[in-house]
Amino acid sequence: MIFSSKLIEDAVEAFTRLPGIGKKTALRMVLHLLKEDKGMVRNFSETISKMREDICFCPDCNNISDGGPCAICKDPHRNKSIICVVENIRDVISIESTQQFNGLYHVLGGLLSPLDGIGPEQLQLSNLTSRIEKNEVSEIIMALSPNIEGDTTVYYIARQLQNRELTITGIARGVSFGGELEYTDELTLARSIAKRLPVETYVKTTSK
Amino acid sequence: MIFSSKLIEDAVEAFTRLPGIGKKTALRMVLHLLKEDKGMVRNFSETISKMREDICFCPDCNNISDGGPCAICKDPHRNKSIICVVENIRDVISIESTQQFNGLYHVLGGLLSPLDGIGPEQLQLSNLTSRIEKNEVSEIIMALSPNIEGDTTVYYIARQLQNRELTITGIARGVSFGGELEYTDELTLARSIAKRLPVETYVKTTSK
Ligand SMILES: [Zn+2]
Ligand SMILES: [Zn+2]
Repeated sequence: MIFSSKLIEDAVEAFTRLPGIGKKTALRMVLHLLKEDKGMVRNFSETISKMREDICFCPDCNNISDGGPCAICKDPHRNKSIICVVENIRDVISIESTQQFNGLYHVLGGLLSPLDGIGPEQLQLSNLTSRIEKNEVSEIIMALSPNIEGDTTVYYIARQLQNRELTITGIARGVSFGGELEYTDELTLARSIAKRLPVETYVKTTSK
Repeated sequence: MIFSSKLIEDAVEAFTRLPGIGKKTALRMVLHLLKEDKGMVRNFSETISKMREDICFCPDCNNISDGGPCAICKDPHRNKSIICVVENIRDVISIESTQQFNGLYHVLGGLLSPLDGIGPEQLQLSNLTSRIEKNEVSEIIMALSPNIEGDTTVYYIARQLQNRELTITGIARGVSFGGELEYTDELTLARSIAKRLPVETYVKTTSK
């Protein structure tokens, strides 16, 4: 495509850096913003920039935070004795959107995958143990994707925690094997959390 | 969706203001930018903002310009005796991308549509006549969408210019009736320009 304007060309190029955005879609976005007033576009770009500049990660659960501990960890009405372990921030948003879970989260930042060279040290695991000690946690819910990496991670964490006085549960399988947690609809996800099971009944662990 | 972060919520909301972007897609974009480094995201938002702040419209042809007359009007290698009349900026980009046209453009900013209340005064028509006088234009190519509004506009402009020493042509019809110019592939569009015809042979005008 030939734009005959460096300003337009640069803006189109900027949008194509976003996932799933080709040149035609990027041009449509740019021409749309061209019709909006300058204040709206300034506000748009400042919002995006501010988000990236100011976002923090919660020192306790690794969730996104607007500063210090995240909104969930700070909330006095949340049940601090239950921790739901998830792969990423998107999973926190998915589970929060069900409005069925009132405990805290722990974001791992990935799943164990020996084939891809992802070991325990690549995940945010170290502060999980300290949180359990500090907060008298009685239950850990493993809400990981139902695939090999998810099961490997559940097994690993369950073994790490096996000598502690706490229940480890896994969300009920409502998702087909190989499915992605983030694409699960809210109802299925809410039911899966409500029908959680002790971990040994759904992953064959040798830890018991 | 519940984000538990005002920064993320605002950024998602900002992206959903773009055409065709729903909440899920917006969230994917925001989480993508969250993984990029701060400098890249700052550059992204500054590029968008600068585009909207600094963009001008060419005083001669109404095309987008980075300041003063547009890159096409300024180019000494373009043939100033041929003007291609188009509906909008997107059409300029489409025709430029064929690399088959070396004249100038005139962007109308719309098409005549009496039913929608769009009359000649809503279009950028006044400076077309003055350009024709100033630049010794020998040919006007009407490159408008092949629909009722396009034909009405061709007819109107042809009648306005009927007493002048110039050829008025229309691009060859390679697009089916009702099609949109901007979705036409580059090859079809290039051929349509090469095979342009005197306007009276394809719109039944009573002006001759
Ligand atoms: Zn937190
Ligand atoms: Zn121009």
